[in-house]
Amino acid sequence: MDNLGLIGMISVATAGITIGLGAIGPALGEGRAVAQALAAMAQQPDESNTITRTLFVGLAMIESTAIYCFVVSMILLFANPFWDYVVKKAGG
Amino acid sequence: MDNLGLIGMISVATAGITIGLGAIGPALGEGRAVAQALAAMAQQPDESNTITRTLFVGLAMIESTAIYCFVVSMILLFANPFWDYVVKKAGG
Amino acid sequence: MDNLGLIGMISVATAGITIGLGAIGPALGEGRAVAQALAAMAQQPDESNTITRTLFVGLAMIESTAIYCFVVSMILLFANPFWDYVVKKAGG
Amino acid sequence: MDNLGLIGMISVATAGITIGLGAIGPALGEGRAVAQALAAMAQQPDESNTITRTLFVGLAMIESTAIYCFVVSMILLFANPFWDYVVKKAGG
Amino acid sequence: MDNLGLIGMISVATAGITIGLGAIGPALGEGRAVAQALAAMAQQPDESNTITRTLFVGLAMIESTAIYCFVVSMILLFANPFWDYVVKKAGG
Amino acid sequence: MDNLGLIGMISVATAGITIGLGAIGPALGEGRAVAQALAAMAQQPDESNTITRTLFVGLAMIESTAIYCFVVSMILLFANPFWDYVVKKAGG
Amino acid sequence: MDNLGLIGMISVATAGITIGLGAIGPALGEGRAVAQALAAMAQQPDESNTITRTLFVGLAMIESTAIYCFVVSMILLFANPFWDYVVKKAGG
Amino acid sequence: MDNLGLIGMISVATAGITIGLGAIGPALGEGRAVAQALAAMAQQPDESNTITRTLFVGLAMIESTAIYCFVVSMILLFANPFWDYVVKKAGG
Amino acid sequence: MDNLGLIGMISVATAGITIGLGAIGPALGEGRAVAQALAAMAQQPDESNTITRTLFVGLAMIESTAIYCFVVSMILLFANPFWDYVVKKAGG
Amino acid sequence: MDNLGLIGMISVATAGITIGLGAIGPALGEGRAVAQALAAMAQQPDESNTITRTLFVGLAMIESTAIYCFVVSMILLFANPFWDYVVKKAGG
Amino acid sequence: MDNLGLIGMISVATAGITIGLGAIGPALGEGRAVAQALAAMAQQPDESNTITRTLFVGLAMIESTAIYCFVVSMILLFANPFWDYVVKKAGG
Amino acid sequence: MDNLGLIGMISVATAGITIGLGAIGPALGEGRAVAQALAAMAQQPDESNTITRTLFVGLAMIESTAIYCFVVSMILLFANPFWDYVVKKAGG
Amino acid sequence: MDNLGLIGMISVATAGITIGLGAIGPALGEGRAVAQALAAMAQQPDESNTITRTLFVGLAMIESTAIYCFVVSMILLFANPFWDYVVKKAGG
Amino acid sequence: MDNLGLIGMISVATAGITIGLGAIGPALGEGRAVAQALAAMAQQPDESNTITRTLFVGLAMIESTAIYCFVVSMILLFANPFWDYVVKKAGG
Repeated sequence: MDNLGLIGMISVATAGITIGLGAIGPALGEGRAVAQALAAMAQQPDESNTITRTLFVGLAMIESTAIYCFVVSMILLFANPFWDYVVKKAGG
Repeated sequence: MDNLGLIGMISVATAGITIGLGAIGPALGEGRAVAQALAAMAQQPDESNTITRTLFVGLAMIESTAIYCFVVSMILLFANPFWDYVVKKAGG
Repeated sequence: MDNLGLIGMISVATAGITIGLGAIGPALGEGRAVAQALAAMAQQPDESNTITRTLFVGLAMIESTAIYCFVVSMILLFANPFWDYVVKKAGG
Repeated sequence: MDNLGLIGMISVATAGITIGLGAIGPALGEGRAVAQALAAMAQQPDESNTITRTLFVGLAMIESTAIYCFVVSMILLFANPFWDYVVKKAGG
Repeated sequence: MDNLGLIGMISVATAGITIGLGAIGPALGEGRAVAQALAAMAQQPDESNTITRTLFVGLAMIESTAIYCFVVSMILLFANPFWDYVVKKAGG
Repeated sequence: MDNLGLIGMISVATAGITIGLGAIGPALGEGRAVAQALAAMAQQPDESNTITRTLFVGLAMIESTAIYCFVVSMILLFANPFWDYVVKKAGG
Repeated sequence: MDNLGLIGMISVATAGITIGLGAIGPALGEGRAVAQALAAMAQQPDESNTITRTLFVGLAMIESTAIYCFVVSMILLFANPFWDYVVKKAGG
Repeated sequence: MDNLGLIGMISVATAGITIGLGAIGPALGEGRAVAQALAAMAQQPDESNTITRTLFVGLAMIESTAIYCFVVSMILLFANPFWDYVVKKAGG
Repeated sequence: MDNLGLIGMISVATAGITIGLGAIGPALGEGRAVAQALAAMAQQPDESNTITRTLFVGLAMIESTAIYCFVVSMILLFANPFWDYVVKKAGG
Repeated sequence: MDNLGLIGMISVATAGITIGLGAIGPALGEGRAVAQALAAMAQQPDESNTITRTLFVGLAMIESTAIYCFVVSMILLFANPFWDYVVKKAGG
Repeated sequence: MDNLGLIGMISVATAGITIGLGAIGPALGEGRAVAQALAAMAQQPDESNTITRTLFVGLAMIESTAIYCFVVSMILLFANPFWDYVVKKAGG
Repeated sequence: MDNLGLIGMISVATAGITIGLGAIGPALGEGRAVAQALAAMAQQPDESNTITRTLFVGLAMIESTAIYCFVVSMILLFANPFWDYVVKKAGG
Repeated sequence: MDNLGLIGMISVATAGITIGLGAIGPALGEGRAVAQALAAMAQQPDESNTITRTLFVGLAMIESTAIYCFVVSMILLFANPFWDYVVKKAGG
Repeated sequence: MDNLGLIGMISVATAGITIGLGAIGPALGEGRAVAQALAAMAQQPDESNTITRTLFVGLAMIESTAIYCFVVSMILLFANPFWDYVVKKAGG
């Protein structure tokens, strides 16, 4: 249970929890936005172009918070500066 | 309880929790979007094409957050860089 | 309490928790979608074909998140790479 | 507190928690679907056939997530590969 | 605190928690379904036969998830394969 | 803190928690069903017979989940196979 | 901290928690039923006899879940088979 | 930290938590019942006698669950059979 | 960390938590009752006497659960039988 | 970490948590009562005297539960019988 | 980790948590009261004087619970009797 | 891990948690008040002056609870009497 | 695990949790305010100037609580007085 | 498990949790704002320009809280002053 093992363990656990936790909010938020978009279309079919455009911009904004989590998760798995340091030190 | 065992344990646990946790949000969000799509169709049957198209785009966006979790879970099980390192080291 | 025992324990626990946790979201989401489909049918009986078709596509999408969890759970029980490694090592 | 005891303990605990946790979501989801089916019937008695048919398909889908949990629970009790391995090893 | 004691303890605790946890969802789901059935009857007294029949099918489906929990709880108390193994081993 | 003490402790604790936890769901579910029955009677006084009959069947179904918990709780207190085994062993 | 002390401690703690936890559900459920009964009376004063009768039956059913908890709590305090056993053994 | 101290500690803690936890449900339930009684009176002033009578019966039922908790709390403080036993034993 | 210190500590902690926890329910319940009383007065100013009288009876009932908690808290601080026993014993 | 230190620590922690926890319920309850009073005034400006009077009585009742918590918190800080005892003993 | 250090630590932690926890309830309660005051003004602009006056009295009552928490927090930081005692003792 | 280190650690942790926790309530309360102010303006544009004035007074009151938390957090970081004492003692 | 390491660890953890926790409230509060502003504009397009101005003032107030958290988080990372002290001491 | 390892571990864990936690609030808040924008457009298609502009300003404000979390997360991974210090010290 040296530094290499500990930092490896924590990196694995954090990578999973970050994206697991970070998927809840965006999924619920997008679900709400999509649901309301469909309700708005049913109410004003003539505005479906404007509604679709606004919906896509909004989804992109919401998705961005999920992307942040995914990016951090990928960094922790494949470009982890702490892991690189301890591996380099262990191999030196 | 050496590094190999610890990183293996954490990888197993994280792989499961990531997808288990990450399935809650998307499932609820998609449920809401589908429910509203059906309500919209009942209200405006003539717009069912536009509604269906928007619904599918929305479901794809929401599903993407579940896919992120599944991808991380699969990486942890079958392409885990930390596990590969400790296995290589243990076998060396 | 060697590596073999620890990885076995965690695999058992994770397999169960993954599907136990992963069943909550899809079940609630599908319940909502089905409930709304029935309400939509009562409101627009003439559209029951379109509603049924959209419902089935939606249920398939939602069910997919439960399937992800079931797949990970089955992999952990019957095709667990970490378990295979420690068993092979213990038997070597 | 050797491997045999630990894997046995965890298997017992996980078998119960999996189905205990996995029963909450489906029961609530089915309750919602049935409740809405009854409301829909009261609103459109002439459509009771279509409603009943859709309800049964929906309940089957929701029940499937409970079945996944029950299957994993049964596997853990009666066809547990980890337990079989440690028993065979202890008996060898 | 040998294997026999540990597996006995966990079996007792899991048997209770499984049914205690597993009773919450079905009870709430059935309460909702029954409540809606009564409201539907008050709205459409002429359809009370169809409503009652659908209600009973629905309650049976919901009750099934409670039954799963009860079955696992009974198996853990009276036909527990792990307990049988350690007792046989202790008695051998 | 031998097996006898541990299994006794866990049995006491589980017996109480099982029924304590298992009383929440049924009480809330029955409260909802009774409340709706009273509302239905106020809306359709002429159907009070049908409503009462359906209510009683529904309450019996919901109460059954509380009964499961009570049965498990009583088994743990007065017909506990694990306790009987350790007492017999301690007395032998 | 022998068996006698441990089983005594757990019995005291469980007796309190059982009834403390078990009072939440029934109290909320009865509150809901009584509130709806009063609303129903205000809506249909002529049916106050039927409403009162149904309310009392319903309250009795809901109270029964609180009674189960109280019974288990009293058994744990004054007729606890585990405590009787360890006292008899300690006194022997 | 002998048996006397442990059972005393647990008795003190349980006595407080039992009534602290047990006061939440009844207080919320009674608040709901009283609130609805006032609304019913404002809607049907002529029925205030029937409403008041039903309210008092209902409050008595709800209060009974708080009384159970208070009784258990008082028993634990002033007529605790486990404490009496260890005191008698310590004094013997 | 002898018995005297432990029982003192637990008594202090329990006295505070009992009233801290026990104040939440009554405060919310009373807030609801008072709010509804004001709404009822605004709807039926002529009934303000009956409403006020019923409100006060109801508040007294709800306050009683807070009083139970306060009484137990005061007993634990100033008339604690367990503390009296250990002090007498320590002083003997 | 003798008795003096332990009882001091617990008294400090409990004094803060008691009032911190005890402020949540009353603040929310009073917020609801005040909000409804303002709504009632807007609906029936002529009754603002009766409403104000009832509001003040109600706020006093709700505030009383916060006062109980504050009193217990002050007793624990400045008139703590357990602290006085251990200080007197330490100083003797 | 002597008494001085422990009581200092707990005082710091409690001072922060008391006000941190105690700010949630009042902020939400005041938010509700202010929101309703604005709604009432929009509905009855002529009563804005009475509404404002009642709002300020209500806000003062709600703020008082936050003030209690702030007072306890300040006492713990700057006039802590337990800290004064241990400092005096350490310095003696 | 002497007193200096412990009090430093706890001060850092508490400073962050106090403001982190204390920001939730005010932010939600202000969000509600602002939202209702906007709704009120849309309903009664002529009263926008009175509404704005009342809103600002209300926001100031709600913000005050966040300020209390920020003040305590700053005191813990930059004018911490416990830290000053241990630093002076360590430097003496 | 000397003072330097401990204070460094806690500072890192607190810096992240403070802003992570402190972002939830403001984000939800601002979401509500913006949503209501859009609803108000749709209802009273002529008042969009007043609404926009009030919205911006409100957002600034709500954002301020997030800013407090960000400021504390930055202080902990880059101007931490406790870290500076232990670094200076370690370097002396 | 020296300072280098501990600070590395905590930095990894905090970086993930900060963004994982910090993504929930903004995603939900943005989802609400976008949903309401779509509803507002359907109600007042002529105001879609004003609505879109206000929506974008609001989304930017809400996104800012997610950005704060992302910034802190990036600082912890790539410009962590505590890590830099311990690395420099370890390398010296």
